Amino acid sequence: MSLPPGARIGILGGGQLGRMSAIAAATLGFRAHVFAPEPDGPGLQVAAERTIAGYDDADALARFADAVDVVTFEFENVPAGALSVLAPRVPCRPGADVLATCQDRLAEKAFLRRVGVPVAPFAAVATERDLPAALAAVGLPAVLKTTRLGYDGRGQAVVRTEAEARAAVARLAPAPFILEAFVPFAAEVSALVARAEDGSAILYDVAQNRHLHHILDESLAPAPIAPASAEAARAHARAVADGLGLIGVAAIEFFLLSDGSLLGNEIAPRPHNSFHWTIEACRISQFEAHIRAVAGLPLPDPGRHHAAIMRNLIGPEGMALLPALLAGPGWSVHLYGKAEARAGRKMGHATRLLPPSP
Amino acid sequence: MSLPPGARIGILGGGQLGRMSAIAAATLGFRAHVFAPEPDGPGLQVAAERTIAGYDDADALARFADAVDVVTFEFENVPAGALSVLAPRVPCRPGADVLATCQDRLAEKAFLRRVGVPVAPFAAVATERDLPAALAAVGLPAVLKTTRLGYDGRGQAVVRTEAEARAAVARLAPAPFILEAFVPFAAEVSALVARAEDGSAILYDVAQNRHLHHILDESLAPAPIAPASAEAARAHARAVADGLGLIGVAAIEFFLLSDGSLLGNEIAPRPHNSFHWTIEACRISQFEAHIRAVAGLPLPDPGRHHAAIMRNLIGPEGMALLPALLAGPGWSVHLYGKAEARAGRKMGHATRLLPPSP
Repeated sequence: MSLPPGARIGILGGGQLGRMSAIAAATLGFRAHVFAPEPDGPGLQVAAERTIAGYDDADALARFADAVDVVTFEFENVPAGALSVLAPRVPCRPGADVLATCQDRLAEKAFLRRVGVPVAPFAAVATERDLPAALAAVGLPAVLKTTRLGYDGRGQAVVRTEAEARAAVARLAPAPFILEAFVPFAAEVSALVARAEDGSAILYDVAQNRHLHHILDESLAPAPIAPASAEAARAHARAVADGLGLIGVAAIEFFLLSDGSLLGNEIAPRPHNSFHWTIEACRISQFEAHIRAVAGLPLPDPGRHHAAIMRNLIGPEGMALLPALLAGPGWSVHLYGKAEARAGRKMGHATRLLPPSP
Repeated sequence: MSLPPGARIGILGGGQLGRMSAIAAATLGFRAHVFAPEPDGPGLQVAAERTIAGYDDADALARFADAVDVVTFEFENVPAGALSVLAPRVPCRPGADVLATCQDRLAEKAFLRRVGVPVAPFAAVATERDLPAALAAVGLPAVLKTTRLGYDGRGQAVVRTEAEARAAVARLAPAPFILEAFVPFAAEVSALVARAEDGSAILYDVAQNRHLHHILDESLAPAPIAPASAEAARAHARAVADGLGLIGVAAIEFFLLSDGSLLGNEIAPRPHNSFHWTIEACRISQFEAHIRAVAGLPLPDPGRHHAAIMRNLIGPEGMALLPALLAGPGWSVHLYGKAEARAGRKMGHATRLLPPSP
């Protein structure tokens, strides 16, 4: 399938990832149709067509499916019910099985291990009764996480004793959980792969990420890490994409240990915050690569021509930086069209190009 | 006036210039409201708000004016009637006087001369009776042009004899016309200036342009011309912007003569086809510069980091290049969302980055 100019690309989700994907779709001559529950989400503001309805509105989903040529997703936590309406009617890229794997931390970790990506020791905790065995397998300190719907640090707790683990289970209930060994990492890095229907793929340079309060604050690319570690991250990303049968982009987050080895942490089968710098620093941004893959267009080398640093603009503190970023000669500013700068909310980002080679 | 994030920027005109301006506005966190007569124009497809109505629909224009914080224009031939509805209600950038000057080739040429930009000899031809005096002043060969609404070579004719001049007047009537000396130019170049309300301005590097059948085919930037000629073009652009009291961007097209001197030809008080390469090759594109000026944001150095070549994709022949452009590793492709690839129609463009210095 290769969609012609003017084809209609459905994007489920109306946040900033959908917004930047819709702009990329328009730039390639496609018509973006954004489906989102919020009446004025960032993605809706740049879409040719809009459906404002809940993800549980089967009628609206069916009409959306019938009105587009392909559907993609700005987030992995798409309800199974929505997919069951969409998938029989229209190609979904990535597909339901990819989303299912990435929605569940247990399935995700098991999948990573299966395709050869090392992961920290982990164990399932369906109920509090599973805790002793899980703690015995994983050790302490550990991180207890809900298996589903966690992001930006929500739904997880670091536990240092069995009592803390029990308290965390009680607090984060209802379960199920995954208990993971706490990883004393030296750095966090991410890799991005775009994969086409025919199995061809492109890999971006690895980004190094710094989080603040569990939210991505800054990404630097290429990551200033050992070339062997960067190459391993890219190879793992390729293995993940092939293992998933992915059509589209996916980011894989890794912990980098002090010995240069990597542990896979999460898969995001969509454009990823840590690759926003690709808009300025590459010929083909992650958003364009995603739309190209979804629409069946070729995936040539992304053509990175600069190194780059990307800073998120989060909440009122982030927005307070805006005047300086706009006035200075160095930063490319992206705002997402969100009305209210609540604490912890990603309002935009800014990218600064750096000389091509570190 | 400096508009805050979320402010509403009205764009009159729904073509590709409005489309790329609307995307730039969204990227800066503004809400683009596009007013256009065609139900599915390129600009409407990426706008947060849309008004589909004629430029003579005073009610729709008034509602549009009341719904936005500032209005800008994708084209200079805005009917005076539309401006008379908009201007009392909302800041218009550029203003009615700028548009009036650029709508009329006689006023434009007189203005260029007034601000010190050399122009080819010209004379007004209100009716056929003015021809002998005009021909005596201008000489032959010459170019007869309608003073208004000409673009891409429409409304003009090269005349080599008085008989041809009379025939052209009859064919292009109703008048008025301008008769301009035919310029045996060595090259066509254009300069782009962005000017803020406070009079500060930024200049882009000069582009060299190649036309085919009177339509821009290719732009190369920086123009491979003598530095003194490029500097003169930029200085002229600055003088034009200051003379107009421009808020926004304007492109000035010049003929470059074989002795390195310049003759001013046209002013376009808006983003210009010959500067589309700024999207990839500069930190601040011409569209972002325009929106920044219109919204009262700072205008730092545009930060060109590459040289570039831009090719228009015109009609079916242009679209036939698409598969190769999409597959190759070098070209950034922009399509405008136009349904039908009619002959001579600008369907998109593609930009290739070149090493920073020639």
